[in-house]
Amino acid sequence: MTSRKQRRTKIALDAMGGDNAPAELVAGAVEAVAEFDVDVRLVGDEDVLREELARYDVDGLPIRIVPSEGYVREGESPAIALRQNPKASVIVATGLVKFGLADACVSMGSTGATMAAAAFVLGMPEGIDRPAIGGPVLGLAPRTAIIDLGANVDSRPAQLLTFGAIGDVFARKFWGIENPRVALLSVGSEAGKGNNQVKETTELLEKSGLNFIGNIEPNELPFGRAEVVVCDGFVGNVVMKLTEGLGQALASHLRDALRDSLPAEELERVASKVYELNNIVESWGGGPLFGVNGVSIVGHGRARRTGVKRAIATAKRTVESQFVSGLNEELARIRNTVAS
Amino acid sequence: MTSRKQRRTKIALDAMGGDNAPAELVAGAVEAVAEFDVDVRLVGDEDVLREELARYDVDGLPIRIVPSEGYVREGESPAIALRQNPKASVIVATGLVKFGLADACVSMGSTGATMAAAAFVLGMPEGIDRPAIGGPVLGLAPRTAIIDLGANVDSRPAQLLTFGAIGDVFARKFWGIENPRVALLSVGSEAGKGNNQVKETTELLEKSGLNFIGNIEPNELPFGRAEVVVCDGFVGNVVMKLTEGLGQALASHLRDALRDSLPAEELERVASKVYELNNIVESWGGGPLFGVNGVSIVGHGRARRTGVKRAIATAKRTVESQFVSGLNEELARIRNTVAS
Repeated sequence: MTSRKQRRTKIALDAMGGDNAPAELVAGAVEAVAEFDVDVRLVGDEDVLREELARYDVDGLPIRIVPSEGYVREGESPAIALRQNPKASVIVATGLVKFGLADACVSMGSTGATMAAAAFVLGMPEGIDRPAIGGPVLGLAPRTAIIDLGANVDSRPAQLLTFGAIGDVFARKFWGIENPRVALLSVGSEAGKGNNQVKETTELLEKSGLNFIGNIEPNELPFGRAEVVVCDGFVGNVVMKLTEGLGQALASHLRDALRDSLPAEELERVASKVYELNNIVESWGGGPLFGVNGVSIVGHGRARRTGVKRAIATAKRTVESQFVSGLNEELARIRNTVAS
Repeated sequence: MTSRKQRRTKIALDAMGGDNAPAELVAGAVEAVAEFDVDVRLVGDEDVLREELARYDVDGLPIRIVPSEGYVREGESPAIALRQNPKASVIVATGLVKFGLADACVSMGSTGATMAAAAFVLGMPEGIDRPAIGGPVLGLAPRTAIIDLGANVDSRPAQLLTFGAIGDVFARKFWGIENPRVALLSVGSEAGKGNNQVKETTELLEKSGLNFIGNIEPNELPFGRAEVVVCDGFVGNVVMKLTEGLGQALASHLRDALRDSLPAEELERVASKVYELNNIVESWGGGPLFGVNGVSIVGHGRARRTGVKRAIATAKRTVESQFVSGLNEELARIRNTVAS
């Protein structure tokens, strides 16, 4: 750790990806290099980025441009787009990590493209077929990481087992929790309740050596009863998006219901808080992609400069936590435990 | 409708089922016969019910006891319990409907037992393998019925199609909506997003003749963009229970956050409203079981007298709406449309 801390973490930022690229991406990067001990490579169209960067006084700051050609649009098939354009910004940014020129890459562009680039360029450790995404999504339970949040649907029980391992390492490395409680999301707390996927996964988690505490019901999620909640990506995505929608709708409801009872400023504070508690993914900026051989941060597509800066901070923290090597060790351990 | 309205609707109440049986069940039934134009048969242990009923002045009211022996406990295997005890209260109550001695049965006991009794005693229309449950679960979208809410997990696409038909008839009969919008819950709004189950169901819904408007994302659920949302029971149960849990947790959050800003009474009103908006299933008392040849109401296990009374009102309304015959016709129509 000592030598790693002595040099700045190098971040490759896909400056062309996301709803607010490139202006807010460059702005966030400039703020990040001024505030944190990071070195940022802005990956994208050289002329465009040079023009954006000229708006700021970055003299002497560790920020520079790495040229790429084009980018993957939201909604494009990632596999096809990457094959057709191997110089797209997200591939070049991921490649900088692969070849040791950056410690982490960050993209606010298409999640599918970031995942495909990471899987293809960085590769995956043994036992992982496809990267996963996860993390805390309920502001009321900020120490409950839900995995997977939508990268994997129709997951096999063996994949759900790896989500448990990922969450375990995440809670240890990011939150310093010694023996994270791992729960399986189901529709009844008794073992044997749930669908076939859940029932088969229960058996694997039970012999995994993880601190598996059994099923958790959806109504218990906001109360922080487990550090890790394992579920299929379809279900995790439902949990994340329903929470976001309810937060938005309830914030509106409160703005109406309390209009005559609270001073405008306090009302706004309360309603915004309800919104934020249910939309925390926006406030992180981004989270690491799990199960790839390197650090790749999937950012929030709508992020503005602050979100971009936070995503860069998350990248730095992920590198420093040595999450990737920790996960690879844990996956190897679980493979041996379950097999034996 | 005329002749039906001229006589009182007869309700068979499983007076032994639910967390607060029999006292609150009898109390709710007494209130119901006093307030609505219904006749209630209390099904259960004769001595126990006679003693409970003696607490009230029911002279001249249309309420009486139908004896049964024992009941199915929450958590018992419904199939085994019903086989071992064919005189259990829920079976006798359902049997009264089967043999025309009641128009509807109501149980606040084990949902599995109520479903099993209805499927076994009343039978199912052609095209239905297993009853479903559904209805509005988001107070912010009170005209959005989600089906299934947990009775069916690992549903086949053909079952999901029947959920669409059920919801269509529900929205017509209960809400008087002429051409209900039917949506499929998925994790992306584009067709082709989602898991295999969703993709295959899309094809069936498209040729169903229902007013299928495509995929709906979970964050859109609170905004009432469809009258009917079709999903697997595992997912629907996650939606229902997560909403309940978030309502509970956010009500607590508001009680803390606004303690110093609002008068106690108003604070309680606001916090309770947030709770209720997210826990509306409690306030209905119960909903009809879909896809059985008769009216069977699955009540909320924790219901007290008001919930029981509301469940009885729901039973009366379900009978009057001729939901069951409407659904059978719609299922026959869809079978022909999809097959052709």
